[in-house]
Amino acid sequence: MSSPSARLAAIKNHLDQGKLLRRTKMRKVIVCRDLGTDAMGILRACEDIELVVWPENRPCDRTWLLDNVTGAEGVALMLSEKVDDELLDKAGPSLKVISTMSVGYEHVSLPALMKRGVRLGYTPDVLTDAVADVAVLLALMATRNVKATTSIVENGQWPESTWAPFSFCGPQLSSGLLPSLAFPAPGTPGTSSNPSGESTERTVGFLGFGRIAQATLARLVAFGARKFIYTGNPNASASSLQSSSAADIELATKHNLPQNAITRVSIESLAENSDVLFVLAPGGPSTYHIISHELLARMKPTAVLVNASRGSLVDSDALAQALGEGRLWGAGLDVVEGEPKVSSDHPLVKEPRCVILPHIGSATFETRRAMATLTARNVIAGVRGEPMPAELDLTAWT
Amino acid sequence: MSSPSARLAAIKNHLDQGKLLRRTKMRKVIVCRDLGTDAMGILRACEDIELVVWPENRPCDRTWLLDNVTGAEGVALMLSEKVDDELLDKAGPSLKVISTMSVGYEHVSLPALMKRGVRLGYTPDVLTDAVADVAVLLALMATRNVKATTSIVENGQWPESTWAPFSFCGPQLSSGLLPSLAFPAPGTPGTSSNPSGESTERTVGFLGFGRIAQATLARLVAFGARKFIYTGNPNASASSLQSSSAADIELATKHNLPQNAITRVSIESLAENSDVLFVLAPGGPSTYHIISHELLARMKPTAVLVNASRGSLVDSDALAQALGEGRLWGAGLDVVEGEPKVSSDHPLVKEPRCVILPHIGSATFETRRAMATLTARNVIAGVRGEPMPAELDLTAWT
Repeated sequence: MSSPSARLAAIKNHLDQGKLLRRTKMRKVIVCRDLGTDAMGILRACEDIELVVWPENRPCDRTWLLDNVTGAEGVALMLSEKVDDELLDKAGPSLKVISTMSVGYEHVSLPALMKRGVRLGYTPDVLTDAVADVAVLLALMATRNVKATTSIVENGQWPESTWAPFSFCGPQLSSGLLPSLAFPAPGTPGTSSNPSGESTERTVGFLGFGRIAQATLARLVAFGARKFIYTGNPNASASSLQSSSAADIELATKHNLPQNAITRVSIESLAENSDVLFVLAPGGPSTYHIISHELLARMKPTAVLVNASRGSLVDSDALAQALGEGRLWGAGLDVVEGEPKVSSDHPLVKEPRCVILPHIGSATFETRRAMATLTARNVIAGVRGEPMPAELDLTAWT
Repeated sequence: MSSPSARLAAIKNHLDQGKLLRRTKMRKVIVCRDLGTDAMGILRACEDIELVVWPENRPCDRTWLLDNVTGAEGVALMLSEKVDDELLDKAGPSLKVISTMSVGYEHVSLPALMKRGVRLGYTPDVLTDAVADVAVLLALMATRNVKATTSIVENGQWPESTWAPFSFCGPQLSSGLLPSLAFPAPGTPGTSSNPSGESTERTVGFLGFGRIAQATLARLVAFGARKFIYTGNPNASASSLQSSSAADIELATKHNLPQNAITRVSIESLAENSDVLFVLAPGGPSTYHIISHELLARMKPTAVLVNASRGSLVDSDALAQALGEGRLWGAGLDVVEGEPKVSSDHPLVKEPRCVILPHIGSATFETRRAMATLTARNVIAGVRGEPMPAELDLTAWT
């Protein structure tokens, strides 16, 4: 419909824009999901960056990503986007950085990045507190029968529920703070020493002992816990196993605990001795179904299991069976294998002693904002060839 | 049906039993509810005590109690049994002690006890930790949208729920532990200072600052809280108001907090400045509906209210209205006025941001066992005229 001169003018205009882009060295950055006002503001303020943002409020289409990634220097994405050879080939040699809004990177092929020299930004540390909060929340919910008790109220059964001295009871998370009153010494007039012979001490176990586990430990010290056991990376070498004990003493001292309060143990011992067992280790093949039928069989019937890391670490069927048979007091899960495809007839959803949150570990405004801005800063620094605020050291995987 | 001689023998037998009772000075103790194996074992082991125990697994009938209490030296009871002039008159001058399995004593008329010189045993301290655990649990549940998120999983909506950078988010309970990473200083390359201008610090408020509040404070220190405000007994005299500040400094020092970290404030200031407001004060007329429409109107829209003391302190309609209008982020309640008569169409039960537990604050096996054995020990010491392990000082109420 346009005249030949108008078409010529349009072509010239297009070429001028191309020159302008080359003159200011615009760096193309793909953003696979709106990162919120703060992070998008940081990105938009960069005059050297041309943003291409997925416009919808759902995970971006793979085809959209593959269509747009060519020539990009950076990509900001989340757990929902798989980073593999196909994506990196499509991006081409311009690509300098992948920045994921997550602390985990199971969705990223590290070898694929390494062979192309592409850097990886991620968001550790900023979500530590939010996830540790949820770990404690789940431990309290699982011990205190929150699934059953809240549904009694919501279903209108409270008026008919008969109070009794031990109704709704569960094991107590906090321990040992007032033993002299709770369990008087033998010989006190009119008393008896702890007649059940039960200890008020709690042993807190950690499968995985990284930042989030240690932040959870810090919280549980305030709940009176004085005995902590853990297993570390199952693939760690013997030397790194031994070197941890100085760190354990240092951590115990920091929390005013006895020097031997924090101990590395075998995974079998961890299962057998934990009153609360926190699963806070990375996902992936080395930890797949590490909480197995056999390990659950070793746990105390009064213990609770908490998983706030990745669903793949727990064998869901084995856990449902252990709960159903009363071989475990309860479980608190922020993650379930196969999520979000977890239906209402999933065996764990149906277990009355299993509380499940839909992976909200880091879901606080403060933390998600911090994760989003860190994702933005990582991609900006990456495309500029500057030090990134949080870069995964890929040389450790070579 | 029996012969005159058989009837005479029965009468003689009855009189002999009476002589036997008088000879061994059997002390009659009424137990209004089975207190569990441990506490009942302690009571049954006392050779000077004749136990009369309500045999059913529900609160005892008032008529049963009135029929049996005559001549009793002690009565062990719970919140469900009202202690008034009628009961004490029926018991008669033999009565020495009422022992309640509770820390509260709203069900007991203190003047009625005092004018008869009857002592009161109760169960403070032993339930402090269990209730403080629930206070933290409720704060975490209310901030992290647990009512909505657990129901998404239970109703099978997880598969369809779209993850987004800020979905399911709530305010974070823990605070300020990693501010340098989360909110970098201005001028850092590729960053911006906390663009929302929001503080990561939390102010934790306590309405009532007794044992349970201080145990809750101890837990929140581990969640990074550094600023605590409270109001004390509203009827306290001016002199006792001023004398608290040395205790505040001592408590702050104990928790490695700055000297000014714990401050007594007016109730208006408490409402206006708290990010989490814990209601942990006794019930009764002086605190009735102290959380009023007017006080709720002063609270921050991002704040949460936790009540783990008595339902009567909170105006339920005013709270439901504040939540419904978004003037408060959420509420976590272990108690509701009029409980257990709280139906599924109660305005607070229907509020999606209000989590309600059916008064399980002290419901752990360890704590309820400790409360039951303390109740038993109190009544034993009371009938023997010995010092009671936990006696309420009634002279403070004269």
